[in-house]
Amino acid sequence: MITLTLVGIGAGNPQHLTLQAIKALNAADVILIPRKGPGKDDLASLRRKICAQVLQTPGSELREFDLPVRDPATPDYRRRVEDWHDTIADVWLREITAALPGGGTVAFLVWGDPSLYDSTLRIAERLKGRMPMEVRVIPGITAMQALTAGHAIPLNTVGAPFIVTTGRKLRESGWPEGADTIIVMLDSGGAFEALLPHGIDIWWSAYAGMETEIRISGPLADVRDTILARRAEARASHGWIMDIYLMRKR
Amino acid sequence: MITLTLVGIGAGNPQHLTLQAIKALNAADVILIPRKGPGKDDLASLRRKICAQVLQTPGSELREFDLPVRDPATPDYRRRVEDWHDTIADVWLREITAALPGGGTVAFLVWGDPSLYDSTLRIAERLKGRMPMEVRVIPGITAMQALTAGHAIPLNTVGAPFIVTTGRKLRESGWPEGADTIIVMLDSGGAFEALLPHGIDIWWSAYAGMETEIRISGPLADVRDTILARRAEARASHGWIMDIYLMRKR
Ligand SMILES: C[S@@+](CC[C@H](N)C(=O)[O-])C[C@H]1O[C@@H](n2cnc3c(N)ncnc32)[C@H](O)[C@@H]1O
Ligand SMILES: C[S@@+](CC[C@H](N)C(=O)[O-])C[C@H]1O[C@@H](n2cnc3c(N)ncnc32)[C@H](O)[C@@H]1O
Repeated sequence: MITLTLVGIGAGNPQHLTLQAIKALNAADVILIPRKGPGKDDLASLRRKICAQVLQTPGSELREFDLPVRDPATPDYRRRVEDWHDTIADVWLREITAALPGGGTVAFLVWGDPSLYDSTLRIAERLKGRMPMEVRVIPGITAMQALTAGHAIPLNTVGAPFIVTTGRKLRESGWPEGADTIIVMLDSGGAFEALLPHGIDIWWSAYAGMETEIRISGPLADVRDTILARRAEARASHGWIMDIYLMRKR
Repeated sequence: MITLTLVGIGAGNPQHLTLQAIKALNAADVILIPRKGPGKDDLASLRRKICAQVLQTPGSELREFDLPVRDPATPDYRRRVEDWHDTIADVWLREITAALPGGGTVAFLVWGDPSLYDSTLRIAERLKGRMPMEVRVIPGITAMQALTAGHAIPLNTVGAPFIVTTGRKLRESGWPEGADTIIVMLDSGGAFEALLPHGIDIWWSAYAGMETEIRISGPLADVRDTILARRAEARASHGWIMDIYLMRKR
């Protein structure tokens, strides 16, 4: 029997770690750390830093393994994601069986919170049919919280709904119906350009919660170009970028 | 000069506390704890428990104070909320000035995350004009994360948006356009009754993250009545309830 613990580690600040996460990491027999290939080194090293910071000795065993890359040849987005998750599930199965042939507890560190635009829960779901397994989730601080905390702003206006969406969706469909506030994640860059900026305010953060955090806010019409320029610049100098923004209609 | 730190403490599990929150609480000169009147005792005692658990000695001074109650006579919801926030701002101003006449750092413990359906940021905003003040926000685990972690489910389907809304809005407007997933908070009870349940799954939690957590999930048509009954029962036996749910269209 395997217990698979998906531990939310927060959105980039090692201080986002909760007491519950620290306990779960220390309670694991093995912590599996994927190597995601070039360009993601900062993120892998953050994971290692977190482990070094909180693991007591004699502690859980750390095992790194290589993740396959997505097949860019599959044209359909959802199909490509599904195939990729299948492949990762195979790798996980192999790694878990090798690490814990007699069963035990294996933990994965998940960026932010495991529920939010993350594939680990879906991959875990695939494993359930293939080995006796219990899945536990430890919540983590999300990029949404890191964004709003940095700007010291509320997500919602009083009693009102808000929509969380992706850059892709925003480009496809514009401002969604029924909410004065939207949060955009997974944007490959400036999806807000698809909107008429008039009457919209934006709060944008890159590397939210990290030492390199960049924040820009203001009327979309005024700060749009500044954001695009700073984004390109930061991306070039770091080699990668993660950004998120909240937009509100006045 | 006052630094006002709004510290997200998570949604009811003292283990939701982050390292950053613990640091911020210990760095405060004063921690102000509102007493919210009868029925909210469990929550005030959780706040005290959290402070006792993480504060080092000699530590920050804890000061409790009484919060005014909302005036139920004002008919308009938003107006009533605005008036109430004004009143609370006055009380905060008085308490802060009394506690730190020469300036310093005052912390408030905020349920969940300060950005999500919470009034403290709006009250802090009101104070800014009235005393020299800097506002800092420490993110916290939200009830949404506690819900999804308990059920081990993702918030979103692959690449898709989701909507966070209130019980009131759901009753008024039904299932909102443009998303297969909605999360409902601040529901005074069973707002899902306003929906035709066919084709909808629900994941419901009361006291999410707490020792008394209750979870029910399944097709809305099948579990609707069970949820209503369990909710009424739990509310009667605890004297209060906090619940949250995610619904997804199949
Ligand atoms: C695959 S999703 C993972 C989200 C994560 N599970 C969470 O809870 O925040 C990655 C997206 O999250 C956002 N993101 C994550 N961490 C971020 C950070 N530190 N700063 C800005 N955006 C971040 C970006 O929009 C990025 O495209
Ligand atoms: C005033 S809002 C505060 C939300 C909080 N700031 C957060 O981040 O979760 C209160 C609502 O949050 C939800 N909630 C908060 N804590 C909860 C818990 N432990 N279990 C279930 N629902 C909770 C309920 O929907 C409740 O009506």
